[in-house]
Formats: sequence, structure tokens, C-alpha cells
Amino acid sequence: MAIVQYNYPTIIKFGPGAVALAADAIKSRGLSRPLVLTDTGVAPLPFFQKIVDSLNAAGLMAGAFSSVYGNPVKSQVSAGVKVYHDHHADSLVIVGGGAALDVGKVVALMVHHPGDLFDYEDDKPGGLPVDREIPFMIAVPTTAGTGSEVGRSSVISDDVTHIKRIIFSPRLLPPLVLSDPELTVGLPASVTASTGVDALSHNVEAYLSKGFHPLADGIALQGIKLVAQNLETCIKEPGNLDARGKMLMASSMGATAFQKGLGVTHSCAHALSAVCDLHHGLAISIMMPACMRFNAAVAGDRLADMTHAAGATGDFAAWLEELQTRVGLPLKLSAAGVTPEHLDKLVEIAVNDVCHPCNPRPVSAADFRALFEAAL
Amino acid sequence: MAIVQYNYPTIIKFGPGAVALAADAIKSRGLSRPLVLTDTGVAPLPFFQKIVDSLNAAGLMAGAFSSVYGNPVKSQVSAGVKVYHDHHADSLVIVGGGAALDVGKVVALMVHHPGDLFDYEDDKPGGLPVDREIPFMIAVPTTAGTGSEVGRSSVISDDVTHIKRIIFSPRLLPPLVLSDPELTVGLPASVTASTGVDALSHNVEAYLSKGFHPLADGIALQGIKLVAQNLETCIKEPGNLDARGKMLMASSMGATAFQKGLGVTHSCAHALSAVCDLHHGLAISIMMPACMRFNAAVAGDRLADMTHAAGATGDFAAWLEELQTRVGLPLKLSAAGVTPEHLDKLVEIAVNDVCHPCNPRPVSAADFRALFEAAL
Repeated sequence: MAIVQYNYPTIIKFGPGAVALAADAIKSRGLSRPLVLTDTGVAPLPFFQKIVDSLNAAGLMAGAFSSVYGNPVKSQVSAGVKVYHDHHADSLVIVGGGAALDVGKVVALMVHHPGDLFDYEDDKPGGLPVDREIPFMIAVPTTAGTGSEVGRSSVISDDVTHIKRIIFSPRLLPPLVLSDPELTVGLPASVTASTGVDALSHNVEAYLSKGFHPLADGIALQGIKLVAQNLETCIKEPGNLDARGKMLMASSMGATAFQKGLGVTHSCAHALSAVCDLHHGLAISIMMPACMRFNAAVAGDRLADMTHAAGATGDFAAWLEELQTRVGLPLKLSAAGVTPEHLDKLVEIAVNDVCHPCNPRPVSAADFRALFEAAL
Repeated sequence: MAIVQYNYPTIIKFGPGAVALAADAIKSRGLSRPLVLTDTGVAPLPFFQKIVDSLNAAGLMAGAFSSVYGNPVKSQVSAGVKVYHDHHADSLVIVGGGAALDVGKVVALMVHHPGDLFDYEDDKPGGLPVDREIPFMIAVPTTAGTGSEVGRSSVISDDVTHIKRIIFSPRLLPPLVLSDPELTVGLPASVTASTGVDALSHNVEAYLSKGFHPLADGIALQGIKLVAQNLETCIKEPGNLDARGKMLMASSMGATAFQKGLGVTHSCAHALSAVCDLHHGLAISIMMPACMRFNAAVAGDRLADMTHAAGATGDFAAWLEELQTRVGLPLKLSAAGVTPEHLDKLVEIAVNDVCHPCNPRPVSAADFRALFEAAL
């Protein structure tokens, strides 16, 4: 039995209106010039301008950077760092989904750290240490999916190869999360659905991943229960703040739980984003049933625990497919533009992904090919 | 829906031998003079001297304070602060059960804070703020019960009245926990049993307590499962490191979960310690079945969830009584020296305790009297 390490996330203030606590949190630390960072989707929404205005109304000098989009690439981070310095900012308020949160966290890293962003890639031989000041940052999630607000890593793609790289440091964990369900009520149904299944997948793959981590296991099962009880409600009643809040919580729980590890579904999804630029949650949703059938050979008991947590009976993969259908997500990769010609490249990237070594069943190249084929 | 706050604990290094990581953790922070603080029970054990010796062998100058005992009182804290200063210490290694951990955490508080310890009592009108330096401290639990190593409070009694007072600050959370099951193998069976049931009670009362906190709920259910699967093994095979480790984990999980709240059992136990100086875990164990029967009127579903987590069927209170019997704990207060003459004082203290307002069913003075009578 080796010595293992457990970490837990940060202070979360949760509830409708929580975003209004940002100004006081900044002022109470003697800071005055926050940069509010978001993505191109959130920037034009009324609530975003309201956040900036409320900071200024509280006597702060808020700047804005809103050029994050897609699966974010390194050049977006560099642009954010430049705007941070141009504004003479002293803090960050990061508002958005996984892309904005991931970019914001590494903008915070790079404003006082030298070198190239990818010099800080996790486990990079000869990489640079995260040992300088990181400005105070507040994470404000606007989707219930990635859970990046409670995570210690960012996933940023190479501008040219589109391969996702993981920047990891405990210091990337935002010290304050404002988890405000009101910010998620305007999400399009398709985004609510695909990000919600992403949140589910974090809980699912964490629960299945190898290693002794009963805290993560407990959080994951409860996260699965929240998604099972609330995701469909968020689609059918977009303004239901109770269901929206519970999905936000399930999202933070998934990212808390996956400090234990993820698995094969995430390796497949990372390849699909790199090769076909698929939305991460959509890729996860389509791949997860096949991946769970693959895991059933070694993890039957744990799959049964998750079925119980979901309040379902029978096969966990079948329950996943029913959920996808009920929330309007496609079941097949072909519906998302993936073709057999992509297979070789998909397999190549998936095999080299960092997530599947935690999967309870080892995954070979042939296994990945079979999984992608099953999902086509 | 109000805005609520969630906090999670700290870095835990878990596994046999983890205590050996203390020296490096101190040295890597540029510190050199740890005070090793423990209780009178642990001090004469071989592993305690080994910890002190290993710190000195690593080039540190370790001092020792080992005068903690019983339900700890304020004068023990003052004595610890004096020894800290006499040693010119710059850090603390707190080794022991709940009493030592609670004393160590507030020794850390009082070495640089002015005034009286009880000026820092939670919610005290006109109390003093926790705003000065707190030295680096490492918590090393030697019982699987209190979980104080991951808690943000200490319970210290008044020397004269024996009333327990709660000192609370997020800054009382030790930044590093070394969770080493080897340190628990020598515990007497009665201590293993009563502390183990205390750990169980934290998970149980947290799961039942009012409020929306699904992370705590998930952790609590998994903690209950670990106790159900491992406590009896620790009694029958005291050297079973796997079971010992899982009980240590369940203990940390209980204290993590009870940031959500505790309940009626703890109010009863606090009164029993104050009036009859009962061991906390023993008081908890005897009171919990009656308290769970009391809660059944409003929390039937949650009691069923816990029965399921315990791998049992039927009535949760009955399962608790079976567990008590299997691990050799008494079922009645009379076996622990409590008499009907104590009732008035017990009820008076329990009603004023801070724990029961979180209980899912309100508890009146008459209810408390009935609960104590049922357990006599």
C-alpha cells in the first residue's frame, strides 16, 4: 500500500445571485483592478455587462477580455496576458464555461511566470516550475459541465496541431468560486445537454477509475444522482433555478471527484476534439455508452452502484442512451460529421492520451478502434 | 434559496509510513524547530519517540509537549503555548486522538494571538478576530474517530465548569495531514470501538442534518460504508492495516462531511461529557440508536439510504445496536455510571448545545429527557 495524496477544492459560494459577491471579495483583499475574462458566447449576454458594471459601481476599475472561443488555443492565452498587463490588472474574474475558465486560470499563471505556456505542461521533462505570484482569481461558471472552477488544471490546445495539452498546478485552483445558477438559465438546450453529460461523465469515470479514493467515490455517486434527477428538467424548464443549481453542483462535484482519475471515454473525446474539433461534451456523450459496455467486463459492481445512484434499473449504458435521447443529444458520431477516414488518426491520439491509464480495464489501440467503430 | 458556502479540507497523505514525511514537509518550508504535541496516552508508546527521533535525525530540533489528557481543558492549552515559546518552536507536529489534535490546533492559534483562548469562541459577541500568524502545523491522527485533523474547530472545556466551548476558524485547519494506519494498530479494542462509532456518527449526523450539501452527503454515505465494512475487522484483527486505513479514512470523511452540520446525538454526548465526564465516543455510541429512532419520524428515506450504505437491511437503529454489540460497546448509560439523578443537568446542557439545531427533527427539553431516559 503506497502513500497517496488527496486534495479537495476551494471555497464555493453557491446560490442565485452569488456573482454579486465578487466586488467585495476583490476589495476585501485590497485589490482594485480586476480583469473580467470570458468567451465570445458570453460577452454579448446581458448578465456579462451587468457583472462588469457592478464591479465598477462598487468602485473598482474593471477591464474585460472576451476573445476565448472553441477548444481554446495558446494564442488566446497570450492575448489575455497582454490585455491583463495593458489594463494594469491586479486580479481576475473568470466568467464562462470550460474554455474561458481554462484560459483564465493560465492567464493568471502567465502574467508573472516566464517562458512559454507549454513549458508548464504537466510532467514535462525540463519544464518550468510554478513558483511565482499568481494573482487572485474568482471563477464564475456559466455552464454546468467542465467543473474547471474547482480544478487544478487547464486544457489548452496547440494552435497548429490542435493537440490538447494539460497545464497542472495546485496553484491553478481559483481560491473562490461563485456558483450562481441564474447565469445558466439562458443556455441553449443543446449546450445544457452536452455540458450536463460532460459533468455526468466526470462523476462516472472518476467512480470507475482505479485507486482507493472513497471521498471521490462518494462525491461521484451523489453527482450522478443529481444529474439523473435534474438534467432533463433543465432542458424542459430552462428557468428552473433549483434544477440549474443542482446541475452546477453536480458539475463541481464531477471535477472534484476526478482528482481520482478519468478513463477511456475522455481519451476518446480528446481525440475527437483534436481530429474533428467536436465539442467536448458532445464527444463524451456519444462515446460514453460504448465505453461503459467495454468497462462492464471488469467493473460490473461499480456500474450497478451507478445505476442505483441514477435511480434506474438494468444496464447503465442503456440508461445513458435513454438520457441522451431524452435531452436531445445524438447517439452516433456520424451525426456529428465523423467518418471512417478519421479512424486512424483518432486511434493514434486516443492511445497517447493521459486519461485511459486510470481506466479500470486496459485499453489497446485495437480496443480504441472498436470503440470508435461502435460509436460511428 | 440563500447563498451558502462549501469548504473542503486539506492535503492528506495517506498510507502506512506516511508519518515519515513530516521532516521533509517542515524542512521544505524553511522551518527547523517543531514542537511535537501529544497526549499522556500516546507519549509512552514506542512510535511517539520514533517520530521525535526521526525529526531530530533529519537535522531538526524537535521539542515535545505531552500533557494532554481526557476531555481537554483550557489550562492544557496554556501549558502547551508556554512550552512552544520555551522551545522557541516555529512549527507544530500534533500527534494523537481528538484531544491532542484539538489542543494542538489552538496552541497554534494562541502562540501569536493575544487575550484568552475563549475570546476566540465561535460567534462570541465581542470576541477577538483570528488575524495573526498561525505557525505551520502537521496533524497526525492516532485514532480513527474525531477527524479533527481535517476540521476547522477545536472543542476545549472550561477548567471549572467542564462545559465544552468551540473555537472555530478556517485557519485552524492543519495544512497537511499525515494519515498513517500503522499508528493505530496498538489501540486498545475499547478505544478502537468507541472512536470508530464516533467516526460513524459524524457521517450519520451529517447525512441527516438539514441543508443542501450533496458533497457532504456523498462523502457521508461512503464513510458509513467504510465503517460498516471495517470497524469489526479492526477489533478482531488489530494489525489489519487495510481495515485500519479504511477506518482512518472514514474518520476524516466524517469530519469533512460534518461541515454540513451534526445533530441531536452530539448534543446528548456533549452533555454526558460535561456532566459525567463520559468518553465522547462512548457517549455517542450509547445515545445514537435512541436518537435515530427519534429522527425516523421525519427522516425515514435518509435512514434507509444509510442502511443501504451499511449493507444492512431493516431498521438503521437496530443495525447500530448490533454493531455496538459486535465491537463490545455497552448499550446503556447505566453501564457507564450515569444515573437518573444526572437527568436534569444533562437536559439543561443538551438543550443549550449548538449541534441540535441542525437536526432534521426539532428537539425540545422534553425530547432530550425522553432520549436520555430511553438510553439509561
